[in-house]
Amino acid sequence: MIKEFLDVITGEPLANEQTGHEKYNVPFGLAIMASDAISSVAYAAEEILIVLIAGIGLMAYTWLGWVSLAIIGLLFILTVSYLQIIRAYPQGGGAYIVAKENIGVKAGLIAAAALLIDYILTVAVSASAGVAAIISAFPQLNTHKVLLVVCLITILTILNLRGISESSKIFSIPTYLFMISMIFMIIYGLIRVSLYGAPPPMVQQQVKLTGELSIFLILRAFSSGCSALTGLEAVSNSVPNFKEPSQRNAKLVMILLSTLILFIFGGTSILARFYHAIPVGYPTVVAQIAYGVFGKGFMFYVIQITTAVILIMACNTAFTGFPMLMYVVGKDGFAPRQFTIRGRRLSFSTGIVALSIVAGILVIIFNATTHRLIPLYSVGVFLSFTLAQTGMVIHWRKSKESGWKKRAFINGFGVVITIITTVIIVFEKFTEGAWIVAILIPIIVYGMSSTRRHYIKVADQLRVDTEDLSKSEIDKKFSHVMIVPISSLNKASLSALQYARSITDTVIAINISPSKKSLDKLKTRWKELNTDIVLVAKYSPYRAVVTPLLNSISEIINAAGEQERITVVVPEFVVHEWWGEILHNHTSFFIRETLLRNKNVVISTYPYHLNED
Amino acid sequence: MIKEFLDVITGEPLANEQTGHEKYNVPFGLAIMASDAISSVAYAAEEILIVLIAGIGLMAYTWLGWVSLAIIGLLFILTVSYLQIIRAYPQGGGAYIVAKENIGVKAGLIAAAALLIDYILTVAVSASAGVAAIISAFPQLNTHKVLLVVCLITILTILNLRGISESSKIFSIPTYLFMISMIFMIIYGLIRVSLYGAPPPMVQQQVKLTGELSIFLILRAFSSGCSALTGLEAVSNSVPNFKEPSQRNAKLVMILLSTLILFIFGGTSILARFYHAIPVGYPTVVAQIAYGVFGKGFMFYVIQITTAVILIMACNTAFTGFPMLMYVVGKDGFAPRQFTIRGRRLSFSTGIVALSIVAGILVIIFNATTHRLIPLYSVGVFLSFTLAQTGMVIHWRKSKESGWKKRAFINGFGVVITIITTVIIVFEKFTEGAWIVAILIPIIVYGMSSTRRHYIKVADQLRVDTEDLSKSEIDKKFSHVMIVPISSLNKASLSALQYARSITDTVIAINISPSKKSLDKLKTRWKELNTDIVLVAKYSPYRAVVTPLLNSISEIINAAGEQERITVVVPEFVVHEWWGEILHNHTSFFIRETLLRNKNVVISTYPYHLNED
Repeated sequence: MIKEFLDVITGEPLANEQTGHEKYNVPFGLAIMASDAISSVAYAAEEILIVLIAGIGLMAYTWLGWVSLAIIGLLFILTVSYLQIIRAYPQGGGAYIVAKENIGVKAGLIAAAALLIDYILTVAVSASAGVAAIISAFPQLNTHKVLLVVCLITILTILNLRGISESSKIFSIPTYLFMISMIFMIIYGLIRVSLYGAPPPMVQQQVKLTGELSIFLILRAFSSGCSALTGLEAVSNSVPNFKEPSQRNAKLVMILLSTLILFIFGGTSILARFYHAIPVGYPTVVAQIAYGVFGKGFMFYVIQITTAVILIMACNTAFTGFPMLMYVVGKDGFAPRQFTIRGRRLSFSTGIVALSIVAGILVIIFNATTHRLIPLYSVGVFLSFTLAQTGMVIHWRKSKESGWKKRAFINGFGVVITIITTVIIVFEKFTEGAWIVAILIPIIVYGMSSTRRHYIKVADQLRVDTEDLSKSEIDKKFSHVMIVPISSLNKASLSALQYARSITDTVIAINISPSKKSLDKLKTRWKELNTDIVLVAKYSPYRAVVTPLLNSISEIINAAGEQERITVVVPEFVVHEWWGEILHNHTSFFIRETLLRNKNVVISTYPYHLNED
Repeated sequence: MIKEFLDVITGEPLANEQTGHEKYNVPFGLAIMASDAISSVAYAAEEILIVLIAGIGLMAYTWLGWVSLAIIGLLFILTVSYLQIIRAYPQGGGAYIVAKENIGVKAGLIAAAALLIDYILTVAVSASAGVAAIISAFPQLNTHKVLLVVCLITILTILNLRGISESSKIFSIPTYLFMISMIFMIIYGLIRVSLYGAPPPMVQQQVKLTGELSIFLILRAFSSGCSALTGLEAVSNSVPNFKEPSQRNAKLVMILLSTLILFIFGGTSILARFYHAIPVGYPTVVAQIAYGVFGKGFMFYVIQITTAVILIMACNTAFTGFPMLMYVVGKDGFAPRQFTIRGRRLSFSTGIVALSIVAGILVIIFNATTHRLIPLYSVGVFLSFTLAQTGMVIHWRKSKESGWKKRAFINGFGVVITIITTVIIVFEKFTEGAWIVAILIPIIVYGMSSTRRHYIKVADQLRVDTEDLSKSEIDKKFSHVMIVPISSLNKASLSALQYARSITDTVIAINISPSKKSLDKLKTRWKELNTDIVLVAKYSPYRAVVTPLLNSISEIINAAGEQERITVVVPEFVVHEWWGEILHNHTSFFIRETLLRNKNVVISTYPYHLNED
């Protein structure tokens, strides 16, 4: 029944041999990589404006330009740095691998923890922002916001469990639609405003000057805007997925991607100023710009829908990235082994499900509000940027290949800039939620280290070297003691006693009676049985069965010799109606589980199947 | 750990021998029985007024009197009928027993289902009304209404799990406080209104005449008011709990109880008219009367608080009645056996927990609104009244003791009246929720019958007659086949193989490999083992392990002879850290459970305990 349900939800299982390896060409690769990075422009300008308008009112629009310029500068530095990572790690170098190989395991784990948190936030933020774009077009949906976001995450989970990657070429269409319509909006908007001036804004709201311009305000705006750069590391992770020459293609995609971010992010910042977009939640800043440029016509809805789609695709990027990172981390023993096993459809189902559950909880806690989730977001991104850059500096110093000094300098400059940015973000966003990340990263790193230690310990204890195999005394004989707990003398318990008896002569039946009456009845009937099996029957005035039973079994274990193996045979009658299960006391289940966890005995379940009718 | 938690919540366990039997004297018995019955006056007059005011505006107050009078007439008939049940069933005759013994098992089950539903509704309604009384005094609590009701139910659950009954003497104090303050309010209110006339009402609201007087309206009002009579059957259930002469004492309590209902219900109806109380939710009608009589002073709060307390105590009555009825029904095999087992503190913990969960769900669904829950309430009460009366008529006819005709006539008259009332309630309240009860009762009755059939079937299949015990071939010998599923050759699997080998020569190791690499490795290492144990190793391209394993085991089962017993030995390493559990695949657990449910094989779990270090 479960199997059929899974078949419907995720499709028929796929064999190992069906693993496909489709490689990206440049346009397709750009579409795949771009969604996460480009989609952030849908909220980055808005985040900057929220800070600035609250602080300095209408002066915000002037400073929006400068802050955006600083972020574009950062974009340039990061692009150059990442082109170097692509060069050095043609086999794909995520921050985890670069940091682990060059700095050390702890640094790698910190980078991994930061990235994992970011993937989760990508899902939560992108899904929320995607729904926000839809709501901007259809405001009546606002009351169901959280529900819509959760549904969206659920649909993406199912699609990814089915193995979406093969069909993801279809997804390059909306990415290009988004890019083209955004570029069209920027160009058309700039021409329109220079010819006719700006129309009255969509949102009429009195902007009050409440604070004054300060370096802190600008830094805060800068740290908010840095969310525009999330997703930039995607290309360097996937170099081997590109068609040959893969490095060259990856570099080309990286450059194209940065150019697109530059153009779209810069363009929206300028238009936001001209069209006086005000961050109010709904409609979003991008929606207000689209309204200003096109009016509430066809193109307005195109912008809203493509924004929504690209955000959903960004969300989908995390559904590929998170399980893949968990797989890499899990292969090294730092994550539960379940994450390294491909599911029925060859996708890493455990990672996909874990991601969607955590992201779903975040969405519910933060009420699907992008603005409240973003402070948690950028910390991890820039922390992993910093660690990757630092790793690269060490990498170049070690390699000493020609021109290593220049390369080390470029990445070193990247380190300085990203460290500063990270510090600014942590400092400015600490009370707004960055503290959560600051607490979570050490916890995750500790958990990962403990997991690895645990696996090593278990493997050490279980390992049998090949040379020891022949020496294992597999034919060694033991004498057996069989203990059979019985509640009364019925067919199930008699069969179990018979089974135990046919293995060994040393069989002990144990009964714990919650009433004296049933105890006496059992003793009388036992005499009729006419056997030399020992019956240990006890009265339990407190009606507990499991504890006195365990005590009796312990006594037998303590009395047993070195060469004796003790087996507890638990009779259990099996009911085949689904509702029959709830009508019986689950004592035997508890006995089995408690014994298994606590005592060094073999637990045999002797099933007595009851007829259907 | 669970044990310690339970100790704190419910107290140390009690031994069987500690069961206490405290008997009620008249004043204590009255206090215990009265809470459920008397507490309903806190909402009965209000329910009548809701119907009448919506229909005929200010004329409602005239008709309130007539409807109340009809209900008091019904009270008189029921009191006389129940005095007869007390006489005939000195061992305690709930509707279930009276109907089962005299009419038939089905009738008994219908009565039981109706009563069970009523107990659940008593908890939901009384807890909601109790919180409503508190909110009338402290309106700012209104936003947390549902939470307050759920907390209240939780507290009562914990108290009852501890075994509250012994200390319930303390509870007679608030019951008497309520009675005295209500009686004082009625007398003082009547005197005040005749001397000074009525003050301006607490709630100023224009009452509009929207409909016209009709027989249906009056019947509807009557059916709403019948909720005042719920709880009347309590005394007849508990005759043996009274001190000797128990029948005489029970009768005295019954008469006192009816007199109190007459006085308090009648009095509130009259005062509601004089003081122009209008049903608006909060403040309740009783609160408005108290305000009219005393102003918002000390006595106003006394009335509110004692009302709240008595409603909570009514709630508590159900916590005694429901588990006790489930116990009686369960003893007859009509309910899961768990309900017949006394918990750690000798209370019927399963019944208590089941009651509070269902009632809690009802409270949440109906948003703790008394008015919406009441239509579900009276149906069951009057259905069980009718069945108990009918049973009594048959009882007298069979007994033919002196004066049986007169007694049969009294109960027969009761039947006619309660049937009419039940029909009116079902008819008038059908669309408001009575349909839920009409659907639930047959479902519960069917469930109860199926449960009994199931238990009888199981017992039949398991039973071994005493004369057959000596004939059971307990020393019969079987030959054994041991199957050991292994994932690789490690210490755990080697130990399990060794264990199997020491029981029988016929050991088969089965391996299902999700990759060809691990399959080859196992085969190579197996050769080193140098054993004649058969290895069945298969490659599973779809990575599923459980299904191919089950198939292989099935093949062995089919090939096995009549005298062979097949045991599957599942090696499992046991991790002792609590979090260690989640780090391992739970394949062995699934194998065990699937085999147990589906195949006629013994399942042995061979634990390999890993060191703590």
